[in-house]
Amino acid sequence: MNDQSGFAKLPVPPYYAVIFSSLRTAGDHGYDDMGQRMVELACQQLGYLGAESARNIDGFGITVSYWTDETSILTWKRHAEHQIAQETGKQRWYEHYETRVAKVERAYALK
Amino acid sequence: MNDQSGFAKLPVPPYYAVIFSSLRTAGDHGYDDMGQRMVELACQQLGYLGAESARNIDGFGITVSYWTDETSILTWKRHAEHQIAQETGKQRWYEHYETRVAKVERAYALK
Repeated sequence: MNDQSGFAKLPVPPYYAVIFSSLRTAGDHGYDDMGQRMVELACQQLGYLGAESARNIDGFGITVSYWTDETSILTWKRHAEHQIAQETGKQRWYEHYETRVAKVERAYALK
Repeated sequence: MNDQSGFAKLPVPPYYAVIFSSLRTAGDHGYDDMGQRMVELACQQLGYLGAESARNIDGFGITVSYWTDETSILTWKRHAEHQIAQETGKQRWYEHYETRVAKVERAYALK
């Protein structure tokens, strides 16, 4: 889960990150509602640790979701409702996106 | 390097990602100039592959830089001019930040 400032509260590594970079199309086309629903749904998935998100005014954004393991990532990717969102994303919401799956090996913060 | 839309052009994995999430303080305090200089300098480092960045209007942002290997990441972290920027970041620019170093294992894009 996230605190109010946008940071995910994560355990000590190792864990996994899905780095999703995207460029939005113009207009909403149901994006905000579906995005909110996907956040709610992701939070309920086994292995979900948290997520962080930022988007520039020009439409380029990055969402990083964090997971305990790769199986949890694949299970979420194949979730029926999430698959509909993914397909709608391809058709309507994104000019382009890149997804990178990575294993977080170490982490440090401003003290 | 990045194309105009904000996406980094990256090779086939594996490679490394430094996920830097931050909450900015109010005001610039030299942040934009130093940020631009750090991007120029990072591009010149051995092992640098590219970076992507997004920030919300409320000040929460994510920058992911990509590197060939961990040694390149550590060399850049210890670069003299970058160390001054890191120190100034702690003192002036960031309310809080989190850094996560991860090994990218697979990647896919919207076709």
